[in-house]
Amino acid sequence: MATPLFHTNLTVKTQSHDYPIVITENSNASRLNNSSGNSTEKSSMASQIAPYIIGRQVLIVTNETVAPLYLNALQKALESQFTVKVCVLPDGEQYKNQSSINQIYDALMVEHFNRDVTLIALGGGVIGDMTGFAAASFMRGVNFIQIPTTLLSQVDSSVGGKTGINHAQGKNMIGAFWQPQMVLADMSTLKTLPARELSAGLAEVIKYALIMDADFLTWLEDNLPAMMALDLAVLGEAVKRCCQYKADIVAQDERESGVRALLNFGHTFGHVIETHEGYGNWLHGEAVAAGMVQAAELSQKLGWLTSEDVVRIKRVLVLVNLPITPPAIDVQTALGLMGHDKKVKHGQIRLILLKSLGEAVLTNDFDAELLTQVLSQHHS
Amino acid sequence: MATPLFHTNLTVKTQSHDYPIVITENSNASRLNNSSGNSTEKSSMASQIAPYIIGRQVLIVTNETVAPLYLNALQKALESQFTVKVCVLPDGEQYKNQSSINQIYDALMVEHFNRDVTLIALGGGVIGDMTGFAAASFMRGVNFIQIPTTLLSQVDSSVGGKTGINHAQGKNMIGAFWQPQMVLADMSTLKTLPARELSAGLAEVIKYALIMDADFLTWLEDNLPAMMALDLAVLGEAVKRCCQYKADIVAQDERESGVRALLNFGHTFGHVIETHEGYGNWLHGEAVAAGMVQAAELSQKLGWLTSEDVVRIKRVLVLVNLPITPPAIDVQTALGLMGHDKKVKHGQIRLILLKSLGEAVLTNDFDAELLTQVLSQHHS
Repeated sequence: MATPLFHTNLTVKTQSHDYPIVITENSNASRLNNSSGNSTEKSSMASQIAPYIIGRQVLIVTNETVAPLYLNALQKALESQFTVKVCVLPDGEQYKNQSSINQIYDALMVEHFNRDVTLIALGGGVIGDMTGFAAASFMRGVNFIQIPTTLLSQVDSSVGGKTGINHAQGKNMIGAFWQPQMVLADMSTLKTLPARELSAGLAEVIKYALIMDADFLTWLEDNLPAMMALDLAVLGEAVKRCCQYKADIVAQDERESGVRALLNFGHTFGHVIETHEGYGNWLHGEAVAAGMVQAAELSQKLGWLTSEDVVRIKRVLVLVNLPITPPAIDVQTALGLMGHDKKVKHGQIRLILLKSLGEAVLTNDFDAELLTQVLSQHHS
Repeated sequence: MATPLFHTNLTVKTQSHDYPIVITENSNASRLNNSSGNSTEKSSMASQIAPYIIGRQVLIVTNETVAPLYLNALQKALESQFTVKVCVLPDGEQYKNQSSINQIYDALMVEHFNRDVTLIALGGGVIGDMTGFAAASFMRGVNFIQIPTTLLSQVDSSVGGKTGINHAQGKNMIGAFWQPQMVLADMSTLKTLPARELSAGLAEVIKYALIMDADFLTWLEDNLPAMMALDLAVLGEAVKRCCQYKADIVAQDERESGVRALLNFGHTFGHVIETHEGYGNWLHGEAVAAGMVQAAELSQKLGWLTSEDVVRIKRVLVLVNLPITPPAIDVQTALGLMGHDKKVKHGQIRLILLKSLGEAVLTNDFDAELLTQVLSQHHS
């Protein structure tokens, strides 16, 4: 079994409890031959998470894409210590809805699982968000563990306790703040990630640089090619930096009454794209990429960013094959969809904009006409 | 407008925030003639709750039975200050499900309401539990206010932040701990309460006496006839005592990791009845009454209660027209339904039993054969 090349721990401090993010590689199963010649499954993924499982009951929630890759080894290894059941959901943002949550509830009820149960989210952001919300609401709250298997969920959605599902009229409208017991991010899972999903995850990585740290943007411009080539140590370093930014922000503002909103840079524009185009057609990270360009363009119109800054943002997104132009959406439709956003306050649309590269603000202090210009720019 | 005969405030201390329970009477609308001769609606129900509404948006959630009684006056009075919308659900425990929650979400989305919204639960325990869960989960949590209009919800379910809905296989399986901003219990609403509902509420009042305070049991034996005759001052005194017991317990153990479980006395047996008979056929309080008798009978078999104690419990329940015998349910079926209970730990059924009148314990320290005897006693 290969020695992990990259292994680091971070701690997220929240009101309910502190928990670790373990960032590692090669924690997935390897097949060992025991003395009797039979092969046994051994999963250090399982050994990493087992100490954080309190009771005897485990429900692994995963999807049809991830299950064939990691489920068997994880389930086998956990079965030596726990009663392990599985709920396999269809894959995709379009299934991030009440019907999938009901499938998780049903699985828990069929097994007579109770408050002792630990749910394990094995998959990307959709699986993590749904499993977390099921954990938040089953019997008014049970434990869960995140094993994010996409870059996007490793750098962003698995950390910080935002859980939920979509409503037909708006993304992530239904949910809860509910913190996991631990997060296990294994870089090796990125080897099986489709290139398009890797790029979508890089959109969130780039987001951290744009809102928090211009030096990190420079680091990314140097290192994104290695990340695209699946250099796991470089990817691990990027995940670590992003998780540290996020942990710091969550510790300050767990329930998003202030600074945490900045993490939604590009998301208000992006949610319009996702909702309008139909969940699952644009990946979340792709919509965020195009949305960040729109937010940057509005920031430029306000005189905060230079045209060179906007070009630099577009260039880094194009470097990792992300879209920088939203689909054509009627301006009034877009404004209507924005009106559903969770950041709307007293009827006013509030946006996260950039004061400069590496510095973001949440503001409603912009001329509505400028927003309309940005929205109509890409609509013939 | 009559001067309130009864008015008192209590405070519930919780981790998220402290909030008041206002127990009063005659806060409902009275029709006043203004100088121009037009009648205007004035609701001191509205004036009591208005200070606890933070934003401008209000969604009143009520049901088809309560709406004709109190909705119009409350809505009119609030409309002078807020944007007020209404969601009227069908009445009954059988509608305490995901479909009703979705109706609340849809109403919120149609109105483009956001995190500023305050939900107002105007009704009994079903409306309160569902509105609370919708508030807990809409945009990951918004404010809500409880206006309980049944005795059961006034003494129990509106206080302490337990919210949720039923699963087809178990009561209150899906939900959240989510505290209201305030609770307004108006004794005058009991004047329109059907006698059967009043009795169901008295089951929970009697429960407090049995688990907490033998003196209160004596007080009830003296005062239950006045309460049945709708003496609002006596009812107000009883509601105040029950809310004080509950506030004390919630302050000690908000998330039910210990003492709060005692409030479920009679409920594990009662939930079996409710689930088996179909939600809404036995009222919750009726099922709790029969369940308390079963719990008392098991306590007697353990030598903790005397046969005189059990007779006294039955007598006080019969005094207020509550059932003391469960319907015939097959023992294995009953045990199976009990296995779903939230208090099951490490596969063992735990029950709240009485060490003596006024003193309850949560225990699994009983011979399973004795439980079977109690369950089979009423099953021919």
